[in-house]
Amino acid sequence: MNNKVYRTELNPVAFLRRSACVYPDRVAISHGARRISYRQMEERVDRFAAQLRAEGLTRGDRVAVLLPNIPAMAEAHFAVPAAGGVLVTLNTRLSAFELRTILNHCGASVLLVDDELWPSVADLDLAKMRIVRVSDTGTADDPYEAWLAGAPWTGPVESWLEDEEETISINYTSGTTGQPKGVMYTYRGAALNALANVIETRLTAESAYLWTLPMFHCNGWCYPWSLAAVGARAVCLRRVDFGRIWELFESESISHYCGAPTVQIGIVGHPSARRLERPITIGVAAAPPSPTLLAQMVALNLQPTHVYGLTETYGPITVREPQDAWSDMPLEAQSAQRAQQGQGNVLSDLVRVVDLNMVDVPRDGETLGEVVMRGNIVMKGYYNAPELTGDAFRGGWFHSGDVAVWHPDGNIELRDRKKDIIISGGENISTIEVEQALASHPAVLECAVVAIPDDKWGERPKAFVTLKEGASVSAEALITHCRQRLAGFKIPAAIAFGPLPKTSTGKVQKFALREREWGGRVKRIN
Amino acid sequence: MNNKVYRTELNPVAFLRRSACVYPDRVAISHGARRISYRQMEERVDRFAAQLRAEGLTRGDRVAVLLPNIPAMAEAHFAVPAAGGVLVTLNTRLSAFELRTILNHCGASVLLVDDELWPSVADLDLAKMRIVRVSDTGTADDPYEAWLAGAPWTGPVESWLEDEEETISINYTSGTTGQPKGVMYTYRGAALNALANVIETRLTAESAYLWTLPMFHCNGWCYPWSLAAVGARAVCLRRVDFGRIWELFESESISHYCGAPTVQIGIVGHPSARRLERPITIGVAAAPPSPTLLAQMVALNLQPTHVYGLTETYGPITVREPQDAWSDMPLEAQSAQRAQQGQGNVLSDLVRVVDLNMVDVPRDGETLGEVVMRGNIVMKGYYNAPELTGDAFRGGWFHSGDVAVWHPDGNIELRDRKKDIIISGGENISTIEVEQALASHPAVLECAVVAIPDDKWGERPKAFVTLKEGASVSAEALITHCRQRLAGFKIPAAIAFGPLPKTSTGKVQKFALREREWGGRVKRIN
Repeated sequence: MNNKVYRTELNPVAFLRRSACVYPDRVAISHGARRISYRQMEERVDRFAAQLRAEGLTRGDRVAVLLPNIPAMAEAHFAVPAAGGVLVTLNTRLSAFELRTILNHCGASVLLVDDELWPSVADLDLAKMRIVRVSDTGTADDPYEAWLAGAPWTGPVESWLEDEEETISINYTSGTTGQPKGVMYTYRGAALNALANVIETRLTAESAYLWTLPMFHCNGWCYPWSLAAVGARAVCLRRVDFGRIWELFESESISHYCGAPTVQIGIVGHPSARRLERPITIGVAAAPPSPTLLAQMVALNLQPTHVYGLTETYGPITVREPQDAWSDMPLEAQSAQRAQQGQGNVLSDLVRVVDLNMVDVPRDGETLGEVVMRGNIVMKGYYNAPELTGDAFRGGWFHSGDVAVWHPDGNIELRDRKKDIIISGGENISTIEVEQALASHPAVLECAVVAIPDDKWGERPKAFVTLKEGASVSAEALITHCRQRLAGFKIPAAIAFGPLPKTSTGKVQKFALREREWGGRVKRIN
Repeated sequence: MNNKVYRTELNPVAFLRRSACVYPDRVAISHGARRISYRQMEERVDRFAAQLRAEGLTRGDRVAVLLPNIPAMAEAHFAVPAAGGVLVTLNTRLSAFELRTILNHCGASVLLVDDELWPSVADLDLAKMRIVRVSDTGTADDPYEAWLAGAPWTGPVESWLEDEEETISINYTSGTTGQPKGVMYTYRGAALNALANVIETRLTAESAYLWTLPMFHCNGWCYPWSLAAVGARAVCLRRVDFGRIWELFESESISHYCGAPTVQIGIVGHPSARRLERPITIGVAAAPPSPTLLAQMVALNLQPTHVYGLTETYGPITVREPQDAWSDMPLEAQSAQRAQQGQGNVLSDLVRVVDLNMVDVPRDGETLGEVVMRGNIVMKGYYNAPELTGDAFRGGWFHSGDVAVWHPDGNIELRDRKKDIIISGGENISTIEVEQALASHPAVLECAVVAIPDDKWGERPKAFVTLKEGASVSAEALITHCRQRLAGFKIPAAIAFGPLPKTSTGKVQKFALREREWGGRVKRIN
């Protein structure tokens, strides 16, 4: 640790300790009928951390969690760094094969797993791992609660943090290669993006945040740490259930939630939808929300703040700041303005749109370029993958792979995705990964997967398949084949058979396939 | 500069650049009929910085400003660091003698001075300094405006910042020795405390902040940078005029201001005082506000947030967070709760109350100890004074010199001041400095100065003087003598003649004098 009187390493765990001191009796976590105060949460987190250490955790050990948005998941976001470990949050929708790949890649020594998700890992060889089961009952017979109760608790666990640039968490994303990429967040970045969330969405001690966004996704965009920074209340939600969400809006006086447009569409379209008396502030991201959707939300008093980012940028890095001039515009025009991606948040560097030589494109709202980022809200790199990291950071900026225009006022607006990534319901799908699954079928000669627009999920994968000479297979059989290898949300929505369009050098022209599917639209992302 | 893609040095100048990008047309500064947008402010700041460099400023050069709360003062808070200089804000109430001492100590190469304050420095030897006069008219014939207009402006000035722990500003405080102490703020600390202000007083892009607190005081508690972080509006004020303040509350839709209790008393007691329709959020500090005053403020819809700090802690470091339970209390009891100093803000370490061996005192609300601080909201040290710095940082914590109790809930509450500092109208007065001025009179044998309670100013100095045998001098003559050496607010409110109470070893027992003046009060500070 540094010995400077005037420097403390930035650490989101400190946010919890402070709220436990200044708001001891405030509710930190609400889950069904359960209430956990900040004072109680700090003790639970210290018990969790003390158990990890007592069971042999050493500095930098990876602790994986396969949990829904429940108290144990929120607590892990503090307990693992408090213990000196690195938190690995697993996407609860992944297949056993995908989970095994990630657990092997990160070398986790501990795994917390919710009973309902146990089947996803039951068949894996977990012999080398300490498993903590979580029943999410909060009662003494819940193995997680028993584990906490048995901890050698003696108050705050002493921090081992020496440098705020140490890794606090690894978030796996499928990436373009189909191989899992472990995005490393630092203590510094996590703390700073947590503060940016507070400022951009105006969280206060009176806020009640509904956990619609999965905490496994970019550490819930760093919101677990944002809430602790201000002493706000986290309202847990095991699964996205739109009727339940409308109930909680009122019974828990929800003031904030976040989610991809898919979630917003479900909320807006539910029979319980009605204009709320108090506004709810909503972070909307993942794919650009349509002006129509934004207008519908505003009509219900769901006030969207449009943000944009990637796993590599701690979740949201840009925000479209509301402008005074909007109030004079028709709602549709306002919404079109809101749907822009904006600019870097208060703790980010401003983002750029560049050409292939890393030169800024003209700020004309027309010239396409790639969005590149740098600064405190960019990941430290990919875990154990220096080459991938070097490639992503070429030229000293992180390459998003997203294609945008740069408006004269400095805001950016996405137009297409350069990388072969499909974003469906807020989750990344690597087209290459889907292609590899298809190609592993003996009848398939070659294939190409592109995104197609989908009203509910934003985008879904569509596969174009050429079969081997003489071979035959049905679309249904190929989909069954994929199901054995991929998470459900990655399965193609449609399969078309036939020859693939190619360049003279034999490269598949994906743009031609996309053109076919997206013809007539201004943007090639949804 | 570091070459890490994932790290940008924290720098409050970036807040201005971002707001100029995302809120270009929003008003950044309002001053009488003048309006400066964020886009304009960025250009003015870059012109200012470009001129400093064109005139020879090199990295780390000190740039002093003797300015009221006017646009040039706000701009200096960005332009000087943008140029790579160190900002030295001079207390506008100091005497020529005091100003000379500080200018010599910091070795400023540039001085910006307001026409009205010119007499304070006119007689000094300023030959080695570049002087920029400021008429505060905003018109082309204002020498400051002409200076900006003549700048070699080519857009944003390239930053020279390599490390966020570099010094951004020096704030002089009189300290206990009577010698000026230059408190160094870092870029990191300034940025982080600016964000803490945003979060603690809930500043947003719609906020309008009235500049009642002098910007020369702890860089206005870092609020110039807080306002830029969110794109809020600064409303300037050349002098504290309570009638004008009430006018501006409405004409400028003021949402926030800060000030010592003295200022609050003036506002609350003015004939224009009336309950406001919209609440104003107010940072109150310097001396603990009385429950009576806090209750009066609440009645007018002036919502106080009580903060506490010193020049060495960037202004406020602690905040008394409002508690849910207060709403059930009688107003007087609530106010007594609010008047506690609370705990470290969201970006500070928690503060401690310790005994002489640096051991925590019991959290019993009774045992007295010294308040000590450490972390990102503590100064880097005293400029060119390593011994003073070492003493202030002994034991690895900054010693405030303030005496407090520690409550069972973790909050601290001030009870006395260990150091010989008097806080009068929010300004520090060194008792030793006043004693030295008195002692320089040929008739004075010895003297001791202590604080006495004052309804308007909080505290004022009272002098106890023993004359040399056979000598005689009137109280009036001694005060005239002091006036030639000290700023007006440091002049004793009263002088008593006679022998001083002493210990057996001959040390003056100041506590006995204080006992005489403060007898019957629970606290020895006001």
